[in-house]
Amino acid sequence: MESIVKYDSKPVLKDPVFIEVLPGIGNVGKIAGDHFAQLLKAERFASIFSMNFPPQVIPDDDCVIRMVGNELWYAKAPNGQDIIFLKGDYQGSTPEGQFILAQDVMEILLSYGVSRIITLGGYGTGKIDRELHVFGAVTRAELKDEMERCGVTFNPGEPRDGIVGAAGLFLGFAQLNGIDGLCLMGETSGYFVDHGSSIKIIEVLGKMFSVDDLDLGELPEKSEQLNVLTEKANQQDPDSRDDLNYIG
Amino acid sequence: MESIVKYDSKPVLKDPVFIEVLPGIGNVGKIAGDHFAQLLKAERFASIFSMNFPPQVIPDDDCVIRMVGNELWYAKAPNGQDIIFLKGDYQGSTPEGQFILAQDVMEILLSYGVSRIITLGGYGTGKIDRELHVFGAVTRAELKDEMERCGVTFNPGEPRDGIVGAAGLFLGFAQLNGIDGLCLMGETSGYFVDHGSSIKIIEVLGKMFSVDDLDLGELPEKSEQLNVLTEKANQQDPDSRDDLNYIG
Amino acid sequence: MESIVKYDSKPVLKDPVFIEVLPGIGNVGKIAGDHFAQLLKAERFASIFSMNFPPQVIPDDDCVIRMVGNELWYAKAPNGQDIIFLKGDYQGSTPEGQFILAQDVMEILLSYGVSRIITLGGYGTGKIDRELHVFGAVTRAELKDEMERCGVTFNPGEPRDGIVGAAGLFLGFAQLNGIDGLCLMGETSGYFVDHGSSIKIIEVLGKMFSVDDLDLGELPEKSEQLNVLTEKANQQDPDSRDDLNYIG
Amino acid sequence: MESIVKYDSKPVLKDPVFIEVLPGIGNVGKIAGDHFAQLLKAERFASIFSMNFPPQVIPDDDCVIRMVGNELWYAKAPNGQDIIFLKGDYQGSTPEGQFILAQDVMEILLSYGVSRIITLGGYGTGKIDRELHVFGAVTRAELKDEMERCGVTFNPGEPRDGIVGAAGLFLGFAQLNGIDGLCLMGETSGYFVDHGSSIKIIEVLGKMFSVDDLDLGELPEKSEQLNVLTEKANQQDPDSRDDLNYIG
Repeated sequence: MESIVKYDSKPVLKDPVFIEVLPGIGNVGKIAGDHFAQLLKAERFASIFSMNFPPQVIPDDDCVIRMVGNELWYAKAPNGQDIIFLKGDYQGSTPEGQFILAQDVMEILLSYGVSRIITLGGYGTGKIDRELHVFGAVTRAELKDEMERCGVTFNPGEPRDGIVGAAGLFLGFAQLNGIDGLCLMGETSGYFVDHGSSIKIIEVLGKMFSVDDLDLGELPEKSEQLNVLTEKANQQDPDSRDDLNYIG
Repeated sequence: MESIVKYDSKPVLKDPVFIEVLPGIGNVGKIAGDHFAQLLKAERFASIFSMNFPPQVIPDDDCVIRMVGNELWYAKAPNGQDIIFLKGDYQGSTPEGQFILAQDVMEILLSYGVSRIITLGGYGTGKIDRELHVFGAVTRAELKDEMERCGVTFNPGEPRDGIVGAAGLFLGFAQLNGIDGLCLMGETSGYFVDHGSSIKIIEVLGKMFSVDDLDLGELPEKSEQLNVLTEKANQQDPDSRDDLNYIG
Repeated sequence: MESIVKYDSKPVLKDPVFIEVLPGIGNVGKIAGDHFAQLLKAERFASIFSMNFPPQVIPDDDCVIRMVGNELWYAKAPNGQDIIFLKGDYQGSTPEGQFILAQDVMEILLSYGVSRIITLGGYGTGKIDRELHVFGAVTRAELKDEMERCGVTFNPGEPRDGIVGAAGLFLGFAQLNGIDGLCLMGETSGYFVDHGSSIKIIEVLGKMFSVDDLDLGELPEKSEQLNVLTEKANQQDPDSRDDLNYIG
Repeated sequence: MESIVKYDSKPVLKDPVFIEVLPGIGNVGKIAGDHFAQLLKAERFASIFSMNFPPQVIPDDDCVIRMVGNELWYAKAPNGQDIIFLKGDYQGSTPEGQFILAQDVMEILLSYGVSRIITLGGYGTGKIDRELHVFGAVTRAELKDEMERCGVTFNPGEPRDGIVGAAGLFLGFAQLNGIDGLCLMGETSGYFVDHGSSIKIIEVLGKMFSVDDLDLGELPEKSEQLNVLTEKANQQDPDSRDDLNYIG
């Protein structure tokens, strides 16, 4: 393993499901996953550092630094399912680095007996008016029924350009290791941070893990801000374009 | 070995010939090799994954993903000769990666007792009117006679800029390992996908492996499309240039 | 260890403090650290060479070359504290290289039982009129009191973009290894080499290590040159901009 | 060792001197070294292949390929001195690759008990009128006297930007290993291939290795061509600039 892994604790987990939560298109996956982890009161148990992240430390409001990296968090879902989240501000800095990081995290997951791998991302349509589908991709066709019952749409052969970065690589490594993998992609324009699209992903995750009371916090309000501005833009208000940029 | 190799099966092969079939100039080699493998009813027996390919998975029409990589296929030629094909959508992403991948595949080939290495490619002339020669390069001069009998032309010192990427590297590694290697380069303009040039390579391969009935499928028709447009371009039809771009 | 380390001597050091002194914003950290090392009559004890530095040798006035790299120097402060300095003309050439180099130096430092890690840098404000604060960042909040007593200012959450390169990485590795780490950042415009800002860092170091007689040598004079030109620039003298460039 | 080394033979050499002969400024070093190796009837004994060279093979006039790499040749000078030459069409493709290649070659040289390391290069002045000095750099000052007697000039602190690539790295590695190293840099404009400058280096090498009869072959004639065109250019013949480009 090329990465440096620093454990806060070594939780005992039973057949955990893994959810990848990293930045990407419209930050849809990261917002959804971070919120869902918070809902389940997830706790960090490990930090991952690597030459494949930017060589950088970030000071907090106390001027105490933390090194840029990724983190592993765990939580128990209401249905009793153990979950491991991969969280962080960055994906690997290079294609090679992304591969190595996914491989290293996979090694940790296998040691925990991971039973399923879920990756989160955005599905950029390039259109400001989007319908907020949650599109899916899977490592084997038999997984589609269950996902459709949770509200996921399957769009044959899409996305045409493939699923890139961590959201794709963890699916690939799942398949290589004979573990079920699925990707949830929130439809979004790709131009703005899209809390509305994240809500849709959270709703799917809520059904998957039997979370009855989905406290969405400030997400609906933030989503509404974008909706208002998008509508204005559609009414050809010449000022609204700038407002949209401001949100992005 | 840096690559990850996943076997579907481990076929027993006798002194197999290796044919490299990857994207390149005019996609000439890839179209020819993929068609020839299909003619011989080749079957995949291994997949190769690596940090040296794009970090990406591709969904099929069932939304089932596959990780970007290269594949090894095998077939038996009508003359009884076992063949291993290297197929894929990508060459390595960097020069270093191309070297490492070729080295890793070479290690597999040596374990199979590979007896000969053939690489396929395009030979870009920069001229729209091309003659569709199949040009050759070899790891030792004694191989030229046999190839000439199969329709290959030798153009002293050509290509001047060398043979780059997998088509070159596998020749080099063949030579390093004392294995006979030859490169078939289909003459092409370099501007368009050139099915006509691929047909010429298939004809050479057909002679080499005693394939009497060369079913070319849709290739002649696709080739004709380019010929028609090329002729139009030569008659200085001002619209044809766009048509040609459309095909490319 | 990937780096090549060449020892001039292996000094016996007691719980040494490490000070990182490499080029960066306004060269503030390098000028300060090099001057402070000279004040304490530091001596070189090791040179570090690596593929992560430019592939280059530099001839001196005798036409005798030295290979580009980093160097370790040591000194004893007036208060009896052993200090190791990391000096050099270059940081690693790539992000990955910077990480590897910091990791290798850290390994050496741990073998010396390093007790504290101090990194020096500039804090670019983008404003020509700067106040010459020395801003700080720490690996744990308890270190702030002592630093404030030495004249360091803490600016919550700053720098927003994080601390990059060696000055950041050594803090991060300190934290990972449970060693106290602190970063001193001299406020500067970021446009010019800023000896005035370096003086402020030297004054902080002087207090930390009980250096009563801080011989600043030519630094005040060089600092004054920039002040004069800055003032001229503020008086909108159209010629002064070029003068400033000349100094930079 | 990361490189692949293929031996033609393993010559027995006594305290050999190493001469680095690779492409660089004005190709001065390569032309000089290749000619000198030919004068001494050098023979190739090893080829070096690596991911750090372009992934490429070159066909000869027989359409037999050779893989791009570097080569080791050996010869005996008239004074009985064994010499190893490093020859090739390329330096490493990246800074890291250049370092690794030099390190690997160094390992071979040390196994041969190399007694001295000489690197050849051009010294670009940016001026078309050049004086054709051979400038020197050394790993220790005591080597200068001997070199001055052979016609080498020492220009304190020059070249200011250092000596980069293989010509620099081998000097650095010589110094690291306590082996005498010297660099011969032929003065040249840096704009053209400069056979005249190469002749000057050959003359220095001739004195060093007691080669009485320096057959310069076609070099004086080729050098004269550049001189004629340079003179024309100085007489402000407007056509000559193009001619010069043609030669370059």
